[in-house]
Amino acid sequence: MVTDDPALRPLAGLRVLEFASFVAGPSGGMTLGQLGADVIRLDPIGGAADYGRWPLSQRTGRSLYWTALNKGKRSISIDVRSAEGRELIVALATAPGPDAGIVVDNNVGRSWLSYEALSKRRADLIQVHIDGYADGRAAVDYTVNPDVGVANMTGPADSAAPVNHVLPAWDLLAGMTATTGLLAALHRRARTGEGAFLRIALADVAYASVANLGWLAEADELGTARPRHGNHVYGSFGVDFETSDQARVMVVALTVRHWDALRTVTDTGKVFDALEETLGADFRAEADRYRYREIITATLRPWFAARPFAEVDRVLSEAGVLYSRFRTVHEVVTAYRAEGGPEILGEVDQPGIGPVLSARSPLRAGAEYGEYATAPDLGEHTDEVLAQVLGLADTELGRLHDAGVIAGSARSH
Amino acid sequence: MVTDDPALRPLAGLRVLEFASFVAGPSGGMTLGQLGADVIRLDPIGGAADYGRWPLSQRTGRSLYWTALNKGKRSISIDVRSAEGRELIVALATAPGPDAGIVVDNNVGRSWLSYEALSKRRADLIQVHIDGYADGRAAVDYTVNPDVGVANMTGPADSAAPVNHVLPAWDLLAGMTATTGLLAALHRRARTGEGAFLRIALADVAYASVANLGWLAEADELGTARPRHGNHVYGSFGVDFETSDQARVMVVALTVRHWDALRTVTDTGKVFDALEETLGADFRAEADRYRYREIITATLRPWFAARPFAEVDRVLSEAGVLYSRFRTVHEVVTAYRAEGGPEILGEVDQPGIGPVLSARSPLRAGAEYGEYATAPDLGEHTDEVLAQVLGLADTELGRLHDAGVIAGSARSH
Repeated sequence: MVTDDPALRPLAGLRVLEFASFVAGPSGGMTLGQLGADVIRLDPIGGAADYGRWPLSQRTGRSLYWTALNKGKRSISIDVRSAEGRELIVALATAPGPDAGIVVDNNVGRSWLSYEALSKRRADLIQVHIDGYADGRAAVDYTVNPDVGVANMTGPADSAAPVNHVLPAWDLLAGMTATTGLLAALHRRARTGEGAFLRIALADVAYASVANLGWLAEADELGTARPRHGNHVYGSFGVDFETSDQARVMVVALTVRHWDALRTVTDTGKVFDALEETLGADFRAEADRYRYREIITATLRPWFAARPFAEVDRVLSEAGVLYSRFRTVHEVVTAYRAEGGPEILGEVDQPGIGPVLSARSPLRAGAEYGEYATAPDLGEHTDEVLAQVLGLADTELGRLHDAGVIAGSARSH
Repeated sequence: MVTDDPALRPLAGLRVLEFASFVAGPSGGMTLGQLGADVIRLDPIGGAADYGRWPLSQRTGRSLYWTALNKGKRSISIDVRSAEGRELIVALATAPGPDAGIVVDNNVGRSWLSYEALSKRRADLIQVHIDGYADGRAAVDYTVNPDVGVANMTGPADSAAPVNHVLPAWDLLAGMTATTGLLAALHRRARTGEGAFLRIALADVAYASVANLGWLAEADELGTARPRHGNHVYGSFGVDFETSDQARVMVVALTVRHWDALRTVTDTGKVFDALEETLGADFRAEADRYRYREIITATLRPWFAARPFAEVDRVLSEAGVLYSRFRTVHEVVTAYRAEGGPEILGEVDQPGIGPVLSARSPLRAGAEYGEYATAPDLGEHTDEVLAQVLGLADTELGRLHDAGVIAGSARSH
């Protein structure tokens, strides 16, 4: 279901210059593009450090990561070390127009690209800068996560070592924090004419999150950290069970309704009544479900162990129990190939790779999803953008190519 | 450093009605509040299902989670089952003004609060609705994560069971996706006068993310899923090491500069040169650092095992190696108490609890952070909001209280 509902492209006409790499900035830029903005990703000639990031396509060696995170953008390649290249970039960043003058970057130590420098050329510039730590120290998702305490509370209770996450959650969250801040600043600029220099540190996104969940305040009160407790959900009931055919399901009872459904469907009501009486507990209260999670889990386990997943799936679904199956990403793909869902996924023909499984935006207008997009070749739009935004003529573009100041791609010629 | 820079409150004047619970909607609303918006959280009388969510304060029993996720908002309590209560809510949602008519919700099955119903009262309404699955099936963060394949690729290689995350990453990301969509729709409404009904499914946020990292396309090409591989960083070099005093550090070498620094500081250059020659490998290429991660890790491990953390910390820091220490959330708190950092954290006097460790927004204006905030009591602003937005007189408010249609808090009287 593809639609041209303009509500799906609310940022149509907006131009954003993105000079960032890896996940945070690029995922934010990709999101703005999905909302209709013209996002121009700037790379040094040859590409930034993320250009060959894994996973790579087995077919052509192109990065499946880069093409996925930069889809729907225009790509320009400019020599960022040359004075002429830098002047082009500054001119692009500060080009006039109410829908321009917006920069997202994660560069370190490039004073010519600082807000101080750029805002001299365009006073109402909006620049969103992403750092590692707020004090400028370097950090990446995989170093921030252990630092803020999450890795130490993740994994099996009997695990000797902390478990770092594989999902770059802080990067993704920082990217959407950047888009939120950028659009808020744009709202203000439209009213007051004033620009903004917004800075976001990846580590701050993580510190704020663990504080916003109450975890720091809790550790402060308790004088100790919450221990690892495997797949149990903290403060309520939720854990994984294995079925007779070795499938694994995550079952969660956050509310009384969930709990009642789980008791009923597993026919464990009498046992839990007796346990509640004996223990002086009330399993309708989630605190007690958490306190007695081990005995609740042990009571429920035989029901799951006695049934194949197909039966567990059918019965839990009918009963309104909150659960899901643990799948691998390959099982997600297999299900997509077999059933064609979920609807957010689809195959696109990615130039430089071929057909790849991709996703469109999770932001729907009513029931309607937006369109799929593919990634540009590196430098595919260098000439187009410089001509369009800065008015450079073909002769001038030719000279800049010859001088090695700018580069295109095979597709741009 | 608290500042009154108006760039920190770009959404000042905007009014948002939030009728959501748990993490996604409330964290999004909190973010809008930190950016200056007047966010009114609506609860049923007695509070929504998240009102008593763990962690709870040992001092007073109040939820550290709820107060952290709802700070900076105004709270109103209305009987959502009564016709009169519903009419008040609809009137609040659709009250006039260019800076109003914005609703965030995650309700299921309340047709009186549907976009269809509300937009009849205010045609340019912006409503952002958060679902579990796009087809309306229920899901929570802890069920979505196993479903999209992340739990199965997380944890030690020898772990029999998948590791579900403890961080509600999808909720947090959905919350910021909601704020991004909301502000994009507001941008469009300011230009065209048109409202929007945006829907976001928690599961879609997760499906899109694993696609956007290239993970689905990779599994599709390989015909299999990436296996668990502990704390190794996929496609590059990064892993944890234990020091002589049992501290643990995460060390990452994403770039050649990182790798050179790590070789040099650990005095392993000759060994790696010999290994590269013998293996026909080039560890300056991150693909080879990943392929030979076990032997690289084994080569580096003795250096870490021979030194206490204080020395490792000093030496790696001076050499520009990218690393961090695994800490517990309690160690984050202890460091804050000892050193007063990071600057994003601070203690606030939370009514109903007392002093609690809290965070302000990670969005800074230049170097400046915004202000700290505390959470309201449930219903603290019921009368104030109904008087201010709907013009209800004291006698009418009294009647609604007596009829049990609205409720206040001790502090609101």
